[in-house]
Amino acid sequence: MKNNIFPNRAETPVCILGLGLIGGSLLRDLHGAGREVFGWNRSAATVKQAQSDGFDVSGELPAVLARAEESKALIVLGVPVPALEDLLAAVAEQAPSCGVTDVTSVKAEVMELVRTAGLEDRFVGGHPMAGTADSGWEATLTGLFDGAVWVITHDNATESDRWVRTWVAVVDMARTVGAAVVPARSRQHDKAVARISHLPHMLAESLAVAGDRGGSLALSVAAGSFRDGTRVAGTAPNLVKAMCENNAEALVSAIDETIELLQEARAALADGTGLDALVEEGFAARGRFEARAGRALFNVRPGTPGWIEQLDAASQAGAELSII
Amino acid sequence: MKNNIFPNRAETPVCILGLGLIGGSLLRDLHGAGREVFGWNRSAATVKQAQSDGFDVSGELPAVLARAEESKALIVLGVPVPALEDLLAAVAEQAPSCGVTDVTSVKAEVMELVRTAGLEDRFVGGHPMAGTADSGWEATLTGLFDGAVWVITHDNATESDRWVRTWVAVVDMARTVGAAVVPARSRQHDKAVARISHLPHMLAESLAVAGDRGGSLALSVAAGSFRDGTRVAGTAPNLVKAMCENNAEALVSAIDETIELLQEARAALADGTGLDALVEEGFAARGRFEARAGRALFNVRPGTPGWIEQLDAASQAGAELSII
Repeated sequence: MKNNIFPNRAETPVCILGLGLIGGSLLRDLHGAGREVFGWNRSAATVKQAQSDGFDVSGELPAVLARAEESKALIVLGVPVPALEDLLAAVAEQAPSCGVTDVTSVKAEVMELVRTAGLEDRFVGGHPMAGTADSGWEATLTGLFDGAVWVITHDNATESDRWVRTWVAVVDMARTVGAAVVPARSRQHDKAVARISHLPHMLAESLAVAGDRGGSLALSVAAGSFRDGTRVAGTAPNLVKAMCENNAEALVSAIDETIELLQEARAALADGTGLDALVEEGFAARGRFEARAGRALFNVRPGTPGWIEQLDAASQAGAELSII
Repeated sequence: MKNNIFPNRAETPVCILGLGLIGGSLLRDLHGAGREVFGWNRSAATVKQAQSDGFDVSGELPAVLARAEESKALIVLGVPVPALEDLLAAVAEQAPSCGVTDVTSVKAEVMELVRTAGLEDRFVGGHPMAGTADSGWEATLTGLFDGAVWVITHDNATESDRWVRTWVAVVDMARTVGAAVVPARSRQHDKAVARISHLPHMLAESLAVAGDRGGSLALSVAAGSFRDGTRVAGTAPNLVKAMCENNAEALVSAIDETIELLQEARAALADGTGLDALVEEGFAARGRFEARAGRALFNVRPGTPGWIEQLDAASQAGAELSII
């Protein structure tokens, strides 16, 4: 980066609050990349385990926040949505200078909590699209984000150095652990993941139930299409519920659209007019998806005139960002 | 087999009418297994190609049917449903002694055509659950049926030696090419495949469309759940349409059940009561599917008292058959 408003951006320390699958794996990878990174977790057992694994973590939130403030760290909120409100209040009070980001899957709801806590001018939302069926520190692993998409939001972007610096620090952190940064506004993000992540779960659960109701004969003759179509119904129910219920508004609309497609297909089957509409459109759509060989790459120069419009254009193209 | 009403069952010649992906691959495997097998195809080009590949095939239907009658062959109808009616009439007239089976995917509709043609007492429906996205003689291959399920129907079963002999010949043929024979009545088969094969196609097409409507951002952030859930939307539209439209009644009912599940989920999301019902049931259903380690094995002695009840019991258990 030739721009000199972020002289030491690769040296911004990172403070991770919450060391579950995402926060803990991020701690491992940033540490592995030689970044200064430290963390906090509510559970004493997790703290002990992470410490004995060689990481710089603590169970004392005020001390950790004081250290973050002192070192001008980027704070990563790694806790589930229900725990965010209290943590945002603590950050607002005890780390008034730090940039803040999160790693939860639904962005509009988090942005509301951030506004309420008064952190809007130094918060940049994030969603690393990575995970496994497991959770907690025991589930953490290195390389979890390598090649994954990390969506970073900019709907509360301002011209201030403070916000831009936070945005740059979040992008840098994501790229340090191998992720591809894709920009989006919160509501666009939530609508997109409703369609391509939460809706697939709802359809897989429904298909699993409908197949199972066919009894042993149906399950005995089931082959690849049923196996593929139900795979994610094997995900732990609490993870599926947390993900989908937190994105209720966008998911309801995606489900409604799908019900309408199925109703049209059902009517076409019942009156004998045939399935051309759905089948031709579905085949073309899957073809477009398969034909995507990676993502477009957009270069942006953070904080320069028009850069937010560039982020919007990159978002619309589903492009990956590079900072110049 | 100790039963002596089928003295030479492994030597029953097989006559295959229609040499597309299924019929042609069956010809290859039976030939490879050393069985007497010969075939017919309407297209002169296919006949020429199959002959030059070393197979005993002809484009002269009357001659082929005369040979089948002469050698008491089992006739396999390998043509698509729209071509069945004419072929059944020709078989009724020109091969009045031969047992007959088919390899199309929907059974109740075929059974109606069979009744109309007056072939009910020597017809046994079949559905090898194997295939690729390709069709025609060029797509044929060896080993296509190895390990696949081959559903064989018995709703028109009679006590007559003729029907039982045909049933045994069909089972033998399926097992010769490595398939697992699962018995079912036609309507049960059609309902089962609607749930576990045709419904997955409808959901995959709908998901592909819903994802695509999310534009580039949605497709860029799509990962495994979308990829798996849309895979079979990549199947050639004419194959999907033929399969699903021919099983309209059963598929409409499976779609209706799915729409109802989605409507309940949608309502639970909208009113905040949560997705427990669908997600817990879907997770348990997928678990039951995954836990199935192969199929139960039922032994039957064809033609003995109570054997049809045994077939019904095996069907309900989704069991594989062995003839004793």
